[in-house]
Amino acid sequence: MLHLQSESTQRWLQQVDENLPEILIDHAHCERKAASTAMNLMNSYTENRPLCVEMTRIIQEELEHYHMVMDVLDRRGITFKRLASGHYGRQLNALTREREPQRGVDRLLIASLIEARSCERFRLLADHVRPRDAELADFYAGLFESEARHHTTYVKLAELFAPRAEVHQRLDQLSLQETAIIAKGSPLPRMHS
Amino acid sequence: MLHLQSESTQRWLQQVDENLPEILIDHAHCERKAASTAMNLMNSYTENRPLCVEMTRIIQEELEHYHMVMDVLDRRGITFKRLASGHYGRQLNALTREREPQRGVDRLLIASLIEARSCERFRLLADHVRPRDAELADFYAGLFESEARHHTTYVKLAELFAPRAEVHQRLDQLSLQETAIIAKGSPLPRMHS
Repeated sequence: MLHLQSESTQRWLQQVDENLPEILIDHAHCERKAASTAMNLMNSYTENRPLCVEMTRIIQEELEHYHMVMDVLDRRGITFKRLASGHYGRQLNALTREREPQRGVDRLLIASLIEARSCERFRLLADHVRPRDAELADFYAGLFESEARHHTTYVKLAELFAPRAEVHQRLDQLSLQETAIIAKGSPLPRMHS
Repeated sequence: MLHLQSESTQRWLQQVDENLPEILIDHAHCERKAASTAMNLMNSYTENRPLCVEMTRIIQEELEHYHMVMDVLDRRGITFKRLASGHYGRQLNALTREREPQRGVDRLLIASLIEARSCERFRLLADHVRPRDAELADFYAGLFESEARHHTTYVKLAELFAPRAEVHQRLDQLSLQETAIIAKGSPLPRMHS
């Protein structure tokens, strides 16, 4: 359903265990960046009405999640701050082809894969922390569904830019690259490290 | 209240009378661009919590207005499309000082002046079209208040970046330049031409 070609490993869960506050701060940034990505897509494809309608919904949901994560940080006494990038998004975005309509397909599919990986990691995180932190587990279990929905929305929108078969072939290619990027990971503890 | 140093003239109302559909299309773009400006400010000043809270509200309201304008276009059978820029925003943004915290002050004050001019023109437009188009008049009268509120919010946020006296001195300067830019206008019929 999520078009991912790998599952996150114990290596990431170890980063979570050793650096939970930093992972949570990064999560707030991720939600803001996801809203920003949707805004940029709306600005680029302003004449694409279905895309603009969906982007508006995604922007509103991501900003709502952003504030929910900020509230979690507050309750836990964690100070929000800027973080150095883990380069996951940058590495994925570098795969975007330059010419339209391929560029649009790639931007949407890369957004779909980031949502998919978040979704997979939210569920893993929820299960992992549940025995000792039910509140956080419930929080992440609650976010899982909307990330999965955003993934599907982005894939469907890509099909407005190219035939379905072409979109899914490209999704397979990008997903394979995503698997390589996430396997390499980052020494910085991040939601996508 | 709006810190504007001029009132819009008959010249603009003549553009409205001669090109109402294009002005309405431009208005939809303006709402999207206003949401985008707020998103960019949130991305730049991510550690400024009060700013991020207000930007979230503004993004949501502007996107709501964007869809309201799109509905007006639909009801009137006007096809939404890209438009060449009237350069009002670009000319104002070019006044932004480069170094922080002055850069932040200017970005916020320029956003505040764009909201103020929209506000002034929405009211003027509402009064102007009322005798022959009560529906459109009511629509613009309804938007007036939130634009005025956004203006005030941006000015208050600028006071987080510099002392109040300094902010208001700079607002006077920028407002004077805004008056020159809007007086020059644009041959393209736009919300800020």
